[in-house]
Amino acid sequence: MIRQKEINLHGYKRGYHLITDIIVNSFDSLPEKGMLNILVKHTSAGITINENADPSVRYDFRTFFDALIPENFSGFTHTLEGADDMPAHIKASVIGQSITIPITNHRLNLGTWQGIYFCEFRNHSGNRKLVLTIYS
Amino acid sequence: MIRQKEINLHGYKRGYHLITDIIVNSFDSLPEKGMLNILVKHTSAGITINENADPSVRYDFRTFFDALIPENFSGFTHTLEGADDMPAHIKASVIGQSITIPITNHRLNLGTWQGIYFCEFRNHSGNRKLVLTIYS
Amino acid sequence: MIRQKEINLHGYKRGYHLITDIIVNSFDSLPEKGMLNILVKHTSAGITINENADPSVRYDFRTFFDALIPENFSGFTHTLEGADDMPAHIKASVIGQSITIPITNHRLNLGTWQGIYFCEFRNHSGNRKLVLTIYS
Repeated sequence: MIRQKEINLHGYKRGYHLITDIIVNSFDSLPEKGMLNILVKHTSAGITINENADPSVRYDFRTFFDALIPENFSGFTHTLEGADDMPAHIKASVIGQSITIPITNHRLNLGTWQGIYFCEFRNHSGNRKLVLTIYS
Repeated sequence: MIRQKEINLHGYKRGYHLITDIIVNSFDSLPEKGMLNILVKHTSAGITINENADPSVRYDFRTFFDALIPENFSGFTHTLEGADDMPAHIKASVIGQSITIPITNHRLNLGTWQGIYFCEFRNHSGNRKLVLTIYS
Repeated sequence: MIRQKEINLHGYKRGYHLITDIIVNSFDSLPEKGMLNILVKHTSAGITINENADPSVRYDFRTFFDALIPENFSGFTHTLEGADDMPAHIKASVIGQSITIPITNHRLNLGTWQGIYFCEFRNHSGNRKLVLTIYS
């Protein structure tokens, strides 16, 4: 059995944001056993799993990835949409735009300290669409 | 229901290449609702989703990843197969070798600007095999 | 049909380790056709697919990623749990914590040179839990 829905995220600033509750609450219930796939339908945002407790981890994600994939990298030629655009594309493929999470006993089977991060890489963006697919 | 097939890519030079149409055209039709998983069966090539319109994005991918994971990194010991080999292995794990994409209304449910990139990291490679699996 | 189980890895030191056999041997048999999803339930360990033959590849993975995501990066603020903690979180999201692999003819349909790497990013860690889910 496959259930599928599209949700909109809006108002997320550049940075790394915990969206575990938003994802779970998008469904009335989760199946006893199955999988959830999440796809971000954009090329300058990403999704990953990481530490859900201390906001300093999300803060350091931004600092580190901005240093690793800098806006002033002299080799970029795709610069018409702003200095933050090409680094955002690169980050999207380094972090990834799709994750698959097991469902067990009607809950996402994540570790105690794991949460789902929505990663917004642009300075100014509008709504962000995610496709959620559940197999059971 | 599961459908599975293996396809061969050949003639792709080192770089980032749009293969969305090749993937979709590998099947007579896609199911009304489901998922597509793609695995690259090699350790020096990758697959990701990114911007499908402007070729300069794919050009900048090559420039940037070649700078991030350089062939002259002095710490590499696995160098017998050429200077491009070990960086190719690293890139494969940074970019990833497997993606899962939702299918909705008989189409891949990607964003408007999203396409599938096949990422060839070696200077000289032969055929590249991909396994495509559809759930519905 | 969905089969799911949780396994424990223990005794893995910081580094990159081949666990293909452990994964396969966790099941009495694999289905004729399907998919296997593996999730690492931790935020400072990862999982990826890479070269299964020469140990120097795994050695170079450690050297390179430790240089790419260094413990002395001056921007980190999340440092209470040790200098290896925040780099471990970053590595987990660069490498990834979840992979999906096709199953064909009762075997993982990996390439000849592909194996599954468990990536331990901490200096001292305890048991590591993985969730294995098979669809068929």
